[in-house]
Amino acid sequence: MSKIPYRFYLTEDQMPTQWYNLRADMKEQPAPVLNPATLKPLTEEELYPIFCKELAHQEMDSETRYVDIPEEILEMYRIYRPSPLIRAYNLEKELGTPAKIYYKFEGNNTSGSHKLNSAIAQAYYAKKQGLTSLTTETGAGQWGTALSEACAYFNLPLTVYMVKCSYLQKPYRKAVMQTFNANVVPSPSDTTEVGRKILADNPDTTGSLGCAISEAVEKAVTTEGCRYVLGSVLNQVLLHQSIIGLEAEKAMELLGEYPDVVVGCAGGGSNLGGLIAPFMRDKITGKKDVRIVAVEPASCPSFTRGKYAYDFCDTGKVTPMAKMYTLGSSFIPSANHAGGLRYHGMSPILSKLYHDGYMEAVAYEQTKVFEAATLFARVETILPAPESSHAIKGAIDEALKCKETGEAKTILFGLTGTGYFDMTAYSAYHDGTMTDYIPTDEDLKKGFDNLPVVE
Amino acid sequence: MSKIPYRFYLTEDQMPTQWYNLRADMKEQPAPVLNPATLKPLTEEELYPIFCKELAHQEMDSETRYVDIPEEILEMYRIYRPSPLIRAYNLEKELGTPAKIYYKFEGNNTSGSHKLNSAIAQAYYAKKQGLTSLTTETGAGQWGTALSEACAYFNLPLTVYMVKCSYLQKPYRKAVMQTFNANVVPSPSDTTEVGRKILADNPDTTGSLGCAISEAVEKAVTTEGCRYVLGSVLNQVLLHQSIIGLEAEKAMELLGEYPDVVVGCAGGGSNLGGLIAPFMRDKITGKKDVRIVAVEPASCPSFTRGKYAYDFCDTGKVTPMAKMYTLGSSFIPSANHAGGLRYHGMSPILSKLYHDGYMEAVAYEQTKVFEAATLFARVETILPAPESSHAIKGAIDEALKCKETGEAKTILFGLTGTGYFDMTAYSAYHDGTMTDYIPTDEDLKKGFDNLPVVE
Repeated sequence: MSKIPYRFYLTEDQMPTQWYNLRADMKEQPAPVLNPATLKPLTEEELYPIFCKELAHQEMDSETRYVDIPEEILEMYRIYRPSPLIRAYNLEKELGTPAKIYYKFEGNNTSGSHKLNSAIAQAYYAKKQGLTSLTTETGAGQWGTALSEACAYFNLPLTVYMVKCSYLQKPYRKAVMQTFNANVVPSPSDTTEVGRKILADNPDTTGSLGCAISEAVEKAVTTEGCRYVLGSVLNQVLLHQSIIGLEAEKAMELLGEYPDVVVGCAGGGSNLGGLIAPFMRDKITGKKDVRIVAVEPASCPSFTRGKYAYDFCDTGKVTPMAKMYTLGSSFIPSANHAGGLRYHGMSPILSKLYHDGYMEAVAYEQTKVFEAATLFARVETILPAPESSHAIKGAIDEALKCKETGEAKTILFGLTGTGYFDMTAYSAYHDGTMTDYIPTDEDLKKGFDNLPVVE
Repeated sequence: MSKIPYRFYLTEDQMPTQWYNLRADMKEQPAPVLNPATLKPLTEEELYPIFCKELAHQEMDSETRYVDIPEEILEMYRIYRPSPLIRAYNLEKELGTPAKIYYKFEGNNTSGSHKLNSAIAQAYYAKKQGLTSLTTETGAGQWGTALSEACAYFNLPLTVYMVKCSYLQKPYRKAVMQTFNANVVPSPSDTTEVGRKILADNPDTTGSLGCAISEAVEKAVTTEGCRYVLGSVLNQVLLHQSIIGLEAEKAMELLGEYPDVVVGCAGGGSNLGGLIAPFMRDKITGKKDVRIVAVEPASCPSFTRGKYAYDFCDTGKVTPMAKMYTLGSSFIPSANHAGGLRYHGMSPILSKLYHDGYMEAVAYEQTKVFEAATLFARVETILPAPESSHAIKGAIDEALKCKETGEAKTILFGLTGTGYFDMTAYSAYHDGTMTDYIPTDEDLKKGFDNLPVVE
């Protein structure tokens, strides 16, 4: 028997009871979020119409290093956590690499992804404040599913604006949300002003996360007792998702390990920011030297080809403006199958860290990503989500570099979820009908030309 | 924090390294399987054209009590096992029952069910014997997916005959099998003589497990280097699936628990036979007194309304005859959504135990089962398969009995898998378009009238 097990689970009493707030250790803070009307930094109070109070506080709080997780949230975490830390012995063997590959697998819950970690927190705080409904958007459907589950658990009505291409490609994903009582609306829709406007301008659009956010925000601010919740990008989301990294850190510590490289897929940054949190802390504070690699789709390359600039978080320009790596809020990415990574922007925290040289980023075409996913599925017996498979591809490439150099590095990657609702994409890959799309510089220029002027 | 955790995992060195063969402790053996041509008991050698040698041996071996699991199989088990033993605190609270409810959850692997436990063993022994391909049938698609995974892992070509109603209802399930390289054929098909005959007699049939078995067996015996493998009913399958019960027993022992009632869903008996193995051993040997409850669909009530008689295992009557609870091999069940439970017969081992009074059985209509499934999903954050949900319904009813009597019984049930590919069924339930079908006595009589005469 191998000394280190294939799957390692923390026991309940080893599970973290606090989230970690990376901002508390950052040498420089992310640029403040701006009120688009005044171009002045937003206050916590100005966020109250959009977010419930506790979440608005978490959004703005850059000082509290560790935040106690309320017992009600820990209760629900214990239903599906800890997630396993898996040693990818079979993948290592298949690649013939001297590297040790670990992955933190977040797909073992009905939402199928890590998104549930923040959904529970956001639903809990909303319920505690006495709110009576929530709205959100979903791309791949993972966030919508997660929030539906959390809202069903806390008995809160929910409307989900689902990016139309996912709504059409993934009817079963929609059915899962409905099982958890959610009202699912394809976006852009005629239920909001911004949706009607987008449809008028571009009747054939299959939507984007940016559009869906605009609709969900509008619905929230125009409905009594309703707030908006978001599954990525936000500081509060990275805070909640730090549970991933904290569990991984603890598990590796118990196994006598520490990663040389941490690899995560990056859409809005929810998984990446959570996974890397304690490792980035060690890097910032000089405790450890660790490489951090973000992996994104070549069709939506925010880090690798975007600009670090103030931009709206949504297509309809109804949200505050954040300084982040962005392709421009008017950029509508091609119908890449990793719907969860089709976002024009990026977490302001991660953007700042990337800008300051703490992280690397790499972009892959989707056919290469599905090649990695299929290889992984066959040897590791997990069917990965297309989003997660970007991290698989990144980790495989790191492991192959080790094969060349003969270095036995320790690689940790985040496997954010399962691909049970992505079989259309897998079929396209197997049929050979999947195509790659890389935006031209001209395509990107259109997005950049529409960036707001903030000086 | 609760003393007993929500989820309990054995460590790798606590995992069983042997399967348990229940026949070794049965007071009376199941009746022998008969050669349909001679009506004489089959010998191990007579099984060689259908099964590989080691599996033929396991099929006939009623004496070896514990069978060492080969290291190659343990290797693959460690990728996805142990499965968690979960304390259903939230379900208990929701029901207001004093009962303690545990479930052994087998859905945390890509095949989505317990079927992988036997698929790995069967693919391994076939490969070891130097066979060059396998055939099988699948109902709900879980067994086909599991075997596709195992065959991809051991690099063995596979043809899967998939019951046509599932093939049509579950295109994504098919796509998963294709991801693992399997050739998937809807059954009945024109690729076999028996398939062509069934289609000629009944062109509109949506198929049944019995039909698909006939086709897969015919294909295997008429193809060089090919054998047939089956995911349920067989003695060898119950042997492999004993890993479920053995892990559950060990985990409960470590938690200081022992079940008063064990509840499992029953189609062909693969999960039920595996789950109950060590508990039935204790009951047979007088070590413990435990109630064992089989749950089946009212639309296909083998235990509760079938006859204990010799019958063919398939519709086409190409297989050996087994003495079992059966609705007649010509009985084609209604298109109940729990495709994996739509089988006319039942494991001969379980049939014998039921006949001898060691087990109880209960049948439920599918709308009641989906009601239980939806309740369970909302409080336990697992989306259960329709098959598995029969056990949920059974366990809930046991827990509600405890509520009435005030008894704090310990209930263990088997949650065999996830329902990610069953969203059509969930949608039908939520839309109110799901119907129940209970065969009339007249319907059953037709099946019984076609039973073979064996005296």
